[in-house]
Amino acid sequence: MISGKNYIGNKQSSKGTKTYRTFDPNLNLATEWEFYEASTEEIDEAVALATKAFSEYKNFSGLKKAEFLRAIADEIEALGDALIQAYTKESGLPEGRAKGERGRTMGQLRAFAALLEEGSWVEATIDEAQPDRQPMPKVDIRKMLVPIGPIVVFGSSNFPFAFSTAGGDTASVLASGCPAIVKSHPMHAGTGELVSSAILKAAEKTGMPNGVFSNLNSSGIEVGQQLVMHPDIKGVGFTGSIKGGTALYKLANERKEPIPVFAEMGSINPVVALPSALNEKGEEWAKQYAGSIMLGAGQFCTNPGLILGLKSETFSNFITTLGTEISALSPGVMLHPNIHQGYEKGKQNLSSQPETSVVASYEAATAPNFAQQKVLKVSGGDFLKNPTLHTEVFGPFSIVVECNDAKELETILNALEGQLTGTILGNAEEIKNYGGVVDALQSRVGRIIFNGVPTGVEVCPSMQHGGPFPASTDSRFTSVGTSAIKRWVRPVSFQNWPQESLPDALKDANPLGLTRIVNGLHSNAKLK
Amino acid sequence: MISGKNYIGNKQSSKGTKTYRTFDPNLNLATEWEFYEASTEEIDEAVALATKAFSEYKNFSGLKKAEFLRAIADEIEALGDALIQAYTKESGLPEGRAKGERGRTMGQLRAFAALLEEGSWVEATIDEAQPDRQPMPKVDIRKMLVPIGPIVVFGSSNFPFAFSTAGGDTASVLASGCPAIVKSHPMHAGTGELVSSAILKAAEKTGMPNGVFSNLNSSGIEVGQQLVMHPDIKGVGFTGSIKGGTALYKLANERKEPIPVFAEMGSINPVVALPSALNEKGEEWAKQYAGSIMLGAGQFCTNPGLILGLKSETFSNFITTLGTEISALSPGVMLHPNIHQGYEKGKQNLSSQPETSVVASYEAATAPNFAQQKVLKVSGGDFLKNPTLHTEVFGPFSIVVECNDAKELETILNALEGQLTGTILGNAEEIKNYGGVVDALQSRVGRIIFNGVPTGVEVCPSMQHGGPFPASTDSRFTSVGTSAIKRWVRPVSFQNWPQESLPDALKDANPLGLTRIVNGLHSNAKLK
Repeated sequence: MISGKNYIGNKQSSKGTKTYRTFDPNLNLATEWEFYEASTEEIDEAVALATKAFSEYKNFSGLKKAEFLRAIADEIEALGDALIQAYTKESGLPEGRAKGERGRTMGQLRAFAALLEEGSWVEATIDEAQPDRQPMPKVDIRKMLVPIGPIVVFGSSNFPFAFSTAGGDTASVLASGCPAIVKSHPMHAGTGELVSSAILKAAEKTGMPNGVFSNLNSSGIEVGQQLVMHPDIKGVGFTGSIKGGTALYKLANERKEPIPVFAEMGSINPVVALPSALNEKGEEWAKQYAGSIMLGAGQFCTNPGLILGLKSETFSNFITTLGTEISALSPGVMLHPNIHQGYEKGKQNLSSQPETSVVASYEAATAPNFAQQKVLKVSGGDFLKNPTLHTEVFGPFSIVVECNDAKELETILNALEGQLTGTILGNAEEIKNYGGVVDALQSRVGRIIFNGVPTGVEVCPSMQHGGPFPASTDSRFTSVGTSAIKRWVRPVSFQNWPQESLPDALKDANPLGLTRIVNGLHSNAKLK
Repeated sequence: MISGKNYIGNKQSSKGTKTYRTFDPNLNLATEWEFYEASTEEIDEAVALATKAFSEYKNFSGLKKAEFLRAIADEIEALGDALIQAYTKESGLPEGRAKGERGRTMGQLRAFAALLEEGSWVEATIDEAQPDRQPMPKVDIRKMLVPIGPIVVFGSSNFPFAFSTAGGDTASVLASGCPAIVKSHPMHAGTGELVSSAILKAAEKTGMPNGVFSNLNSSGIEVGQQLVMHPDIKGVGFTGSIKGGTALYKLANERKEPIPVFAEMGSINPVVALPSALNEKGEEWAKQYAGSIMLGAGQFCTNPGLILGLKSETFSNFITTLGTEISALSPGVMLHPNIHQGYEKGKQNLSSQPETSVVASYEAATAPNFAQQKVLKVSGGDFLKNPTLHTEVFGPFSIVVECNDAKELETILNALEGQLTGTILGNAEEIKNYGGVVDALQSRVGRIIFNGVPTGVEVCPSMQHGGPFPASTDSRFTSVGTSAIKRWVRPVSFQNWPQESLPDALKDANPLGLTRIVNGLHSNAKLK
């Protein structure tokens, strides 16, 4: 069922000569599936088809695009066990996770469908003419968001469903009215091919133009670079490492026409444990955080990699319990030997910093590719002086920092780079009493959490997943939640435009029943 | 009254040794005012003050910031004739224009004040908790826009009020909750100093923190570069040339932490004259366009530099009338000898292209710095082949292109770079009949106009002033109209945050009475 071929629009294609295999980290063996790296010719074909498809697809109604997105969810589900088996084989992640993530992915597609069906996301804004205004008459101007063109999506390794082929980036791209070209993640190319087949089946069933979606295989960086540099590509979505994301961002800015790159990259997700939290339920938090650090073998962009507290007996107790709890958990298998090697290297690098001491380190033998968890401890002063300790280790790893006082804690937070999330454990009174700490944390993050764990990213309109650089390349946009659609559109104003030729969203009669901004105020009324 | 000094926060300062003067283009003489170029020390002081001011200013209520903006408008008006005289002297523009532009500038400040008073611009978005949701409980998440930090504003030469010291960029920056550091435009540094004094008087009267605004003089590029590279600067607004804007954009992307640069740069603002427009009122359009090309000596970013039509007798008649009408108008003085030289050079360059012929060329002698208007003609085929003809000549200049048919017209539009505006002259029926032409034009522009002239940019919520690169560096944002505030903010999500510590915009009780998105739908209700 998995052919190893690219999808150039709805046609399978294997013109390239280079091939590669995916890997089963549990068996520690390559899979039986061989993938054909996309050739330059195939890249150009996919972009040409997408450009052609765009001229039609961009004008499709929200209802029609919603039908497509709902059909994709249905077709993914229809792939049944074959898809779940490919996922677990290529990622090492368990079946329960596979099914949960599939549900989330279908939920994302349906959430964007619902957004399109409601329709107000286009931010229709109308200012009516005032022909008698003094000293100059006012013209009629109406603005709405329109799609920008073919988009390249780079999926992430750690969410083979939810942030890959039909994940949040692709769903938001297709919802916006832009065609998507996915640069398939080489670690789950088989899963990606199956999901691609579901997307293309849905496209055919719902009458989408050929080229609205393509899937290109690649195990190296050249295919991605060629796509980003192609003059007909108008934007890029990426989830992965700071190194990879920054490289694509720089490349896109060197184009004759620079294009936006929305890269969701690294984060150590600082957690601040204030005294009341530790006094009242320190043991419970230690247990929850041991679980959060270990979740999915630590392979989450929201993994809590930094826990800060004020030096005290209760904080010491918390650290001890965290160490005991995390040591009692069983290591999980990582996605791929490369990721496991990266984890070991990062862990070694931080462990070898002389200022650190060990809180917990799982040392018992494991099967290949399993991640042995580790927690280090360091003083606030030492942490501040050594930027190596601020870097992300992707896996079940965290550093606990003992600060002398709130001032030092605040200084440390102000010295951190941008983060996806920040968390405060405490009580409502402490949010006020530690105002400087909370303010410093908020200035560094896209999402600030009170009394919770950062892992678990809700897909909803109010979610901000993206923070100041280098957490993401553009902190003004999110890659999770329905606002993610805003990355692929731009506003266009229509001045003095005839009613009959205006897009439906901007017509006086408001045929779509949208909430619009009319003469400066929200309204869902028709204009007289 | 004009000292030539910088404003570092509310203190005048002249630590630099380099000085320069502004210029009166009507007298063709330097003014009596001497300006002190800002030193590195002064730059650092201004940024440090802005950073300190930000920690306080970012938390000010919309009402308090609105009071500040309204006070700025009042203080600008209170400067009276002294300000108008400095403006006309340093720009050569007439008093009527000065007063009109002052009114527009005050109108912009008050429009942002009104936006803040209404308050819904922060896009408050609330998703309530669902503790009983299966398979996992849903947490409470609330999102709103927050300001990003100190911003540098580079004013434009051609709008000494409306796009300079207290212009749309500064007004939107201050409205957003960010401090503004203006890199004063060297051609109207005296006007800028006076306007700065008004801003600072307003800041004092309304209790704003020192450093919320600074004004730095500079006649070269070093001060601007230092500002853009300063690690505590978080964004840049720029209006000017493609060369200048692109250089700042590239510089900002080379920073360790890249920052957004919103540069509104060049545009030739294509106009498509369809047959019915020429048949029905060709003479009237010719007259209107002659006026639009000549408006403000052609020194508008929306100046119509390219007029396209289908080869025919009526189009020939239109061209002849346009030539007659524009030849009958009197040249205007340009802002500065450098701008006049740039105009002459650009005009020569395009006139020397062998494919062109002259429609109109004002040749009579003028006083120094006056811009002699010129209109060229070229065939569609020749225009397509020669990209030099696609470049902007800043001044009273335009090219008329005779196309063989609609297909050639469409091909030309698709070959153009991004533009601020595009215009269709015709009737409603032709918008449908020339669908390909209209579609190609729309894909290239930020604002599409029907039966009008591109000059004249209304300040309102539905205005999009900014188009695909190189019209601007980020087509997703506008520099005119109240949406310009969106450039200086980013969303932050608050997860499970206590009511009492949430920003007012996100509280259950909705104390600001905002329109918010609650559980996916617009609502201005309190939450129970």
